[in-house]
Amino acid sequence: MKSETNHKLRIIPLGGMESIGMNITALEYDDSIIVIDCGLSFPGDDMLGIDLVIPDVTYLKENIEKVKGFFITHGHEDHIGALPYILRDINVPVYGTKLTIGIIENKLKEHTNLKAVKKKVVKYGQSINMGHFRVEFIRTNHSIADAAAFAIFTPVGTIVHTGDFKIDYTPVFGDAIDLQRFAELGKKGVLALMCDSTNAIREGFTMSERTVGKTFDTLFAENVSHRIIVATFASNVDRVQQIINTAYKYGRKVVVEGRSMVNIISTASELDYLKIPDGTLIDLDSLKDYPDEKTVLITTGSQGESMAALSRMAAGIHRKVQIKPGDAIILSSSPIPGNEKAVAKIINELSIKGAHVIYSDTHVSGHACKEEIKLIYSLLHPKFAIPVHGEFRHRKSQADLACSLGIPSDHVFMMNSGDVLELDEETAVISGKIHSGSILVDGLGVGDVGNIVLRDRQSLSQNGIIIVVLSLEKHSNELLAGPDIVSRGFVYVRESEDLMEEAREIVCNAVNDCLRRNITDWVRLKTVIRDNLSDYLWKKMKRSPMILPIIMEV
Amino acid sequence: MKSETNHKLRIIPLGGMESIGMNITALEYDDSIIVIDCGLSFPGDDMLGIDLVIPDVTYLKENIEKVKGFFITHGHEDHIGALPYILRDINVPVYGTKLTIGIIENKLKEHTNLKAVKKKVVKYGQSINMGHFRVEFIRTNHSIADAAAFAIFTPVGTIVHTGDFKIDYTPVFGDAIDLQRFAELGKKGVLALMCDSTNAIREGFTMSERTVGKTFDTLFAENVSHRIIVATFASNVDRVQQIINTAYKYGRKVVVEGRSMVNIISTASELDYLKIPDGTLIDLDSLKDYPDEKTVLITTGSQGESMAALSRMAAGIHRKVQIKPGDAIILSSSPIPGNEKAVAKIINELSIKGAHVIYSDTHVSGHACKEEIKLIYSLLHPKFAIPVHGEFRHRKSQADLACSLGIPSDHVFMMNSGDVLELDEETAVISGKIHSGSILVDGLGVGDVGNIVLRDRQSLSQNGIIIVVLSLEKHSNELLAGPDIVSRGFVYVRESEDLMEEAREIVCNAVNDCLRRNITDWVRLKTVIRDNLSDYLWKKMKRSPMILPIIMEV
Repeated sequence: MKSETNHKLRIIPLGGMESIGMNITALEYDDSIIVIDCGLSFPGDDMLGIDLVIPDVTYLKENIEKVKGFFITHGHEDHIGALPYILRDINVPVYGTKLTIGIIENKLKEHTNLKAVKKKVVKYGQSINMGHFRVEFIRTNHSIADAAAFAIFTPVGTIVHTGDFKIDYTPVFGDAIDLQRFAELGKKGVLALMCDSTNAIREGFTMSERTVGKTFDTLFAENVSHRIIVATFASNVDRVQQIINTAYKYGRKVVVEGRSMVNIISTASELDYLKIPDGTLIDLDSLKDYPDEKTVLITTGSQGESMAALSRMAAGIHRKVQIKPGDAIILSSSPIPGNEKAVAKIINELSIKGAHVIYSDTHVSGHACKEEIKLIYSLLHPKFAIPVHGEFRHRKSQADLACSLGIPSDHVFMMNSGDVLELDEETAVISGKIHSGSILVDGLGVGDVGNIVLRDRQSLSQNGIIIVVLSLEKHSNELLAGPDIVSRGFVYVRESEDLMEEAREIVCNAVNDCLRRNITDWVRLKTVIRDNLSDYLWKKMKRSPMILPIIMEV
Repeated sequence: MKSETNHKLRIIPLGGMESIGMNITALEYDDSIIVIDCGLSFPGDDMLGIDLVIPDVTYLKENIEKVKGFFITHGHEDHIGALPYILRDINVPVYGTKLTIGIIENKLKEHTNLKAVKKKVVKYGQSINMGHFRVEFIRTNHSIADAAAFAIFTPVGTIVHTGDFKIDYTPVFGDAIDLQRFAELGKKGVLALMCDSTNAIREGFTMSERTVGKTFDTLFAENVSHRIIVATFASNVDRVQQIINTAYKYGRKVVVEGRSMVNIISTASELDYLKIPDGTLIDLDSLKDYPDEKTVLITTGSQGESMAALSRMAAGIHRKVQIKPGDAIILSSSPIPGNEKAVAKIINELSIKGAHVIYSDTHVSGHACKEEIKLIYSLLHPKFAIPVHGEFRHRKSQADLACSLGIPSDHVFMMNSGDVLELDEETAVISGKIHSGSILVDGLGVGDVGNIVLRDRQSLSQNGIIIVVLSLEKHSNELLAGPDIVSRGFVYVRESEDLMEEAREIVCNAVNDCLRRNITDWVRLKTVIRDNLSDYLWKKMKRSPMILPIIMEV
């Protein structure tokens, strides 16, 4: 859909409203579009075999001459992960803070055709003019360093987008969120606030990242005579910094293990976001040269990801690290919804190997709870509120908070992806819907797996498949060979020989019956085979495998 | 394996040690075996298409002349669910309290060949003599009424098995757990304790079921002008009683919806475990005759089960109940690990329809936390401890508690299913292992789906299947038809025509090449087809579908 020109500001979430992740929002005024974030999401349980999910940006492609640039709030996958795919078609500059751009550059390196993309580092307080917009970067705190909120100055008023954030008065790296700037913006007048809802159902205030450092100190003190292994999110550079600080304090050498952990740590140290005392970091191969109680491993796999380093250690298939009785293993994370069982599995496996696994009170969230959200609203006093980031229930909880703070409920917008919110200085209204959606990525294929394929995978996964092949003579339609029956994922055939033989007879009789009655239309024949076989199997076993008849003409 | 006779007591967990559920333990002395519980477990994420899992009781079958009876602690599926399968081969009497036997009878009704099974109701305090054993039923509390612990008097000493339990000083139905009897047994001497570990990693004390009643009172008071829907576990009769009590207090009519809820409620009221004031219960069909604010629906589906009543309401496909804005929906449960996402999905769907969904502080657990477990140990003072019920980490946490209470660590046994613990008056030692395991139930098939079938389902679910069919002439081995390529769950073929055509050519060339070189061995031919096609697809798409070549001889 080509957009119209009507001197109104249009806010269009292109993704991220129906589920966690895939954050991407377009802001449009006349001939200018800017895009905030460009994230991926991870596949849901029903997306069998899918690697990742990216937003459908048809709208941006159709209005490509207007698109000026991407503004990225921070370096997490759900905010940057779709860039390598989207930039192929929409090659415009990407703006972000230093670490964010560093992580994006790392990501784009693997894609040869994307080296020409213009990337620009922006400092907190700095503004970028772009068409009808001016975008100011404001310091926030989050579970990755260098997170930013945006104040977007538009012809109809100021829009504030918080990105993912928390309020940390005592952050590990850098300064606290720039509350004074939020207050100043609020004083001057904010038209609309797009605020992070991830923790909007939680009461109170998210604890400072620094509290986890204190926990590490305690745990290291309690485990002075054991090896310590800490698993956490690779991108949480401040967490890694605190582990290193505590290790240094206790005279331990640090090994970093897991590909994404090694990548992020090298990017972060190059850019000076991580300070590692000389001689602290050692190779995995040198680990054996030090006594256990003088070492710490920092590793990936805190979410139970099956291929990550910690999972391989837990399963006893890590090439270089064996878990020993007495090892103290700290999971410095909490399970992302859906990962609970995988995490429990790892904890059990590690415990069976004799390790002492510590996983409560070892993590703080990177997102604002209710009281923080109220503070931001109270500083900004926006005319309109658009809760973003989170499931419906989280965004709805923020909407309720906004109303409780005096914003009229018709000034609070629970938007869906693709909704177009049109604003002028005084009014905001959802004026229409553009085409939006998800595109599934499977291997190198982008968008070649859709609902039909997923439905087939679902059916195959539950009951397997039975293939019926037969050969007919071209002209006489005489049965030359078969029907043969082959199955996969259905039953263990060797123990079910009678069943399979009976099934073959059923099909054979059905086919012969058709041929005798001169029914030779293949579609008819296949339907008869499918119906007879599926009836038989349901009666006999209460199962419905996929049945695939294949007829060959010889 | 035939068991030996050596005048020792043997405790053999036949299931339930590696994962939650499938609780079943054999106690053996000379010519007597009794079995405690006979549960099923629900399939893990890797058991695609499986309906449920039951224990492999080969050991009981091989010693069938010794097996005297099943003693059931309470009526939950993970303690009774395998009975309909196991009783087919091992038809011995089943002992339990009144409600437990009522639920079992309900269950066995559907199985015509199991009507002859002897079932016997036992009262708290009553003992059953059985071979070398005497089994006393002791009152406990749990999330289902009529739960029992067992004191099992054996020639070498007393074994106490708690079943699933909590300590509720103010239960809704009946009396509190019989702590005095536990104390008395402890005074006389307990050889070994098998104690529930489900909540052994949680600090403190599980709250009384009655506290949920207070919550209902508050929530009903806050929602006097709305319809109220409460979802909970069907088997939690006391919870249902409290909902009914509050509904009655607020002058609301109660509708029960969901098959398992209707079943349990009718069993429980018949047996007098549920008291429903006259005129309170109405039909679902009469719901429309009452104003919304005068009704309560009690329903299944609190775990997000896709076919349960609440899920159908949330999805807008329930035949008789439509969710309306303003409906207050209480999830009186907490998600069982693995169900978190399904529960979140329902909450979102209900919220989108405008309902107010309440799901925190609306549930208490049915299992003992650390302080309760310590109390039981302190009353019983067992010589040996065998933590049961729970993942490894939960059982290990109880083992640590036992040690902290003064039990030597070599008197605490972390058993695996199939382990044989041999005890006399003074010693306990794991003396061997018998065959044990899980049997998968899929439809009517018991045990016909094994690892190969599951691996195939796994592979099919991730990448789908490509079938290559071709016809060869019997004697000349000439290619008469094909190769044809059919795929399911791989790519959307209409948009990938070129790919499929290229794949066909690759196979065609490979086959012709073989035939030219007189390679006509079918195994060789199939390998060549598989290798060439899988190479091509990996290079082109980074995907590995299952490839199934089928050769027909005409």
